[in-house]
Amino acid sequence: MTNIEFSQRVKDLHGSAIRESFKALSRPGMISFAGGMPAPETYPSDKLAQIANDILLKSPVTALQYGITEGYAPLVGQTKERLARFGIGNGGDSLIITSGGQQAIELTTKTLINEGDGIACEDPSFIGALNAFRSYNAKLYPVPVEDDGMNTEILEKTLSENKNIKFIYTIPTFQNPSGITMSLEKRKRLLEIAKRHNVLILEDSPYHELRFAGENVSAIKSMDTENRVIYAGSYSKTISPGLRVGFLCADSTFIEKVVVCKQVSDVHTPVLSQMIISEFLDKYDIDTQIKKSADLNGKKCRLMLGCIDKYFPQSVTRTKPEGGLFLWCDLGGGIDSIEFAAKCIEKNVAIVSGASAMPDTTQKTSTFRLNFSMASDDNIETGIKAVGDVIKEYGR
Amino acid sequence: MTNIEFSQRVKDLHGSAIRESFKALSRPGMISFAGGMPAPETYPSDKLAQIANDILLKSPVTALQYGITEGYAPLVGQTKERLARFGIGNGGDSLIITSGGQQAIELTTKTLINEGDGIACEDPSFIGALNAFRSYNAKLYPVPVEDDGMNTEILEKTLSENKNIKFIYTIPTFQNPSGITMSLEKRKRLLEIAKRHNVLILEDSPYHELRFAGENVSAIKSMDTENRVIYAGSYSKTISPGLRVGFLCADSTFIEKVVVCKQVSDVHTPVLSQMIISEFLDKYDIDTQIKKSADLNGKKCRLMLGCIDKYFPQSVTRTKPEGGLFLWCDLGGGIDSIEFAAKCIEKNVAIVSGASAMPDTTQKTSTFRLNFSMASDDNIETGIKAVGDVIKEYGR
Repeated sequence: MTNIEFSQRVKDLHGSAIRESFKALSRPGMISFAGGMPAPETYPSDKLAQIANDILLKSPVTALQYGITEGYAPLVGQTKERLARFGIGNGGDSLIITSGGQQAIELTTKTLINEGDGIACEDPSFIGALNAFRSYNAKLYPVPVEDDGMNTEILEKTLSENKNIKFIYTIPTFQNPSGITMSLEKRKRLLEIAKRHNVLILEDSPYHELRFAGENVSAIKSMDTENRVIYAGSYSKTISPGLRVGFLCADSTFIEKVVVCKQVSDVHTPVLSQMIISEFLDKYDIDTQIKKSADLNGKKCRLMLGCIDKYFPQSVTRTKPEGGLFLWCDLGGGIDSIEFAAKCIEKNVAIVSGASAMPDTTQKTSTFRLNFSMASDDNIETGIKAVGDVIKEYGR
Repeated sequence: MTNIEFSQRVKDLHGSAIRESFKALSRPGMISFAGGMPAPETYPSDKLAQIANDILLKSPVTALQYGITEGYAPLVGQTKERLARFGIGNGGDSLIITSGGQQAIELTTKTLINEGDGIACEDPSFIGALNAFRSYNAKLYPVPVEDDGMNTEILEKTLSENKNIKFIYTIPTFQNPSGITMSLEKRKRLLEIAKRHNVLILEDSPYHELRFAGENVSAIKSMDTENRVIYAGSYSKTISPGLRVGFLCADSTFIEKVVVCKQVSDVHTPVLSQMIISEFLDKYDIDTQIKKSADLNGKKCRLMLGCIDKYFPQSVTRTKPEGGLFLWCDLGGGIDSIEFAAKCIEKNVAIVSGASAMPDTTQKTSTFRLNFSMASDDNIETGIKAVGDVIKEYGR
């Protein structure tokens, strides 16, 4: 066999442990708190089937032929309108449809980051974004997440000390993996800090519409008067992840360059996927759809929190999300959660060790992530009890 | 506005002039020989509508939920089987489904190329690939295309003199833009040369099934005994470009790394797109579909060649493709084909200047590309006559 030498940027890159673990989830009886998906029963699949059929019968050429890189024009318009409801997007901004929120992150990185440039990111953060950053040899600067979001003092210090930092990456609302929402005050402070240090902000917000408690907090992008914030969103958590439709709203000069980068990446996001989303937005009330999904998530989250309080020792801390798909626990006491997750798998429960969410992979962690949207009520009780039993094996 | 500084790798990257020109094609009365698409009437749209509807009603969760990065398993299997008919793929190979053939090229580049590494490519070549290479700061080494494919003497010399070259990029069959097919003898020689210089080959073959004349020539990959050839293909030209389903078949260690890179790019290709292709392959005879499409292309190609012989001066040379979607003309006489293409647009005919197909963008060229699959028979005659009139304005 030919010996293939990989590029420097990807040679040490490894797959997401979470996605790898999906392959093991087919074991019979396995209860999964590992995924990051909405409950499948919330997908409007009958409506989407009718829509897909109609599109391919009535507009086959548009759906099956090449499309423009910027995205299917009606969907671009609808997405802009929807974002405007949250105060997102101004005269200097444009919007591009991407192949999921993941591509929005990847293209932003490719467009901005030279090898060795820095990115300040929440610790813990979203593995998919961290790996996208790593795939361009970016240097990651972790900033701890507190109950009300990023520690802004540490952020400021980090930016002062590292002039190579190009942007701050944040998931301010129902953060993945922690479930934490950044306070309005910290959002304002974050924007001021970015301004002071002249860095950009990548605001990744795929979950913000999935609120089931508390009050809406304004997007950082909605307070941005200088086109400093690059806003990434997605229809994955509100309509369907499998269709892979996301978007990026930012300064129009930046988006122009992103369009060029997307052209060489995949030419355009599948037109059929985009048309399905567009027709759904046109024909149905997406707010009802989202509310249905968020209500169900809220119910499951409350159930899971109740079970945690019942079956986990009090020494285990956990977050109390007001939306999204995840909550976050800390075992404390120097327990290695990679080993802990492996023990849970033996008991037929899949959780995600916080290790995969660490910008600094050399650190050990006693944290883990639980998804509350996918499992049935019965499985939530059975699974959390089993995880509690594993914790007790540690004598905690 | 914030001043955004782009990364070195993309700051000089510009969009494909071809794709940009699509936006102008909406002008009424415009005849386009510019696209690179199969004729839309050849898409099996009614069948695809029924299939999409069935999938979303019968398997909504599979279609709408996240899928695995490697691709929808049945489609991976079907694609492997189909490639095996052409002798492509062996025990050491794997296959990944990509978001069109374009992503297969982009991911290969990201996985292999360090900044400043070299790629030997045909001159002229496919703009989408050239731009993907440029987007990773690869250095391009042009190798002229002759009537029977790449000039292998110049290739060998180029590899001898430039040890930074990592792979050879070729579209051996019905090349884009030239329409030329590399001879079997040259394919064998290319493989020997790659072996001797220990470089890889990226064989890009989206058109090879669209043959309407002559005999099949074996894929380079089918003669590869050392997993040296990375084979990229696509369902874009045989079923639908808008669904964005392509594939990459290569050494399994390489594909493993590509999977990791795809995970950070777009997680996976939309499952619905993949399932539609898979069901189509399962339920219908794709060979009949392809033959119908290729026969139509052949008819249109012969018509266009006839019109060229009638309306162009004899001094203009042109290729005579045995398949694919394009033919290639050379005006000669130092005419700049960018200016020439602009004059054609004034006469309501869109052609593509060869300038966008040059690995070395500083070179002027008198060449241009014509697509013969899209225009109606009447428009082929009217359009070629108009182009002929523009040529005559040059006194040729």
